[in-house]
Amino acid sequence: MPADTSVENCVFCAIVAGVGPAYRVYEDEDVVAFLDIRPVTRGHTLVIPKPHSPYLEDLEPENGAKIFRMGQRIARAIRRSDLGVAGTHLVVNDGRAAMQTVFHTHLHVIPRRKGDKATFVFGAAWRRLVKPEETAEAIREGLRRLG
Amino acid sequence: MPADTSVENCVFCAIVAGVGPAYRVYEDEDVVAFLDIRPVTRGHTLVIPKPHSPYLEDLEPENGAKIFRMGQRIARAIRRSDLGVAGTHLVVNDGRAAMQTVFHTHLHVIPRRKGDKATFVFGAAWRRLVKPEETAEAIREGLRRLG
Repeated sequence: MPADTSVENCVFCAIVAGVGPAYRVYEDEDVVAFLDIRPVTRGHTLVIPKPHSPYLEDLEPENGAKIFRMGQRIARAIRRSDLGVAGTHLVVNDGRAAMQTVFHTHLHVIPRRKGDKATFVFGAAWRRLVKPEETAEAIREGLRRLG
Repeated sequence: MPADTSVENCVFCAIVAGVGPAYRVYEDEDVVAFLDIRPVTRGHTLVIPKPHSPYLEDLEPENGAKIFRMGQRIARAIRRSDLGVAGTHLVVNDGRAAMQTVFHTHLHVIPRRKGDKATFVFGAAWRRLVKPEETAEAIREGLRRLG
């Protein structure tokens, strides 16, 4: 079955429109950032461009630049937060062959802690959201600390 | 032992300066793209900003945007190449806790093929460069096809 890449059924477009639920950590006129509901590690955040684009092939390069800029900023904010983070993966998975599951391009910001390999592998399998309100607020506080 | 983040010992700065060896696929005044010498899959390419910055913390946001734009473009080029690619991961690993090993910020462009999970896992462990000249030329040809 081909992937459903339509705007109508896009859960991220629903978040952009404010009708889908999300733990938002940041929003401006171009991008929205919110917690991944199936986080690999605590603080795992997604940054999306507001316009719908299923793949890197459809993504306006300027919108790509915007989500990367914001991903970098959120990574820096998380390092300043109280979430105890020592490293970060920034990841875009493009296409089913690369494990893309939502067909609205998104950048993952995945925090890492020192010596967290077991937690990371477990989290990648389990992906359970814990204390989302507190986590989102810690990241917002990190953004405020960035200034 | 702290990571050696100096410009003097930076293997990527040596590539920028033209004194370190690399299979280049693209270069302009801002960025260089070349094959990862320990590829996870065939076509695994790195995009780096020319100025040295060890971490996301030090990276000028505009340089981050530039490597992402180029990473997106190379991903699209590889899809048009003869390398038989169906998906792509774009990845920045920031900090030792996130498996960063070269302390000059770089974006990985990692091609995926349909049903390549075993190859991918094997490649991630083995990371052996095969036919680099042909691979680099196939990506350059993909860039030409992009126009």
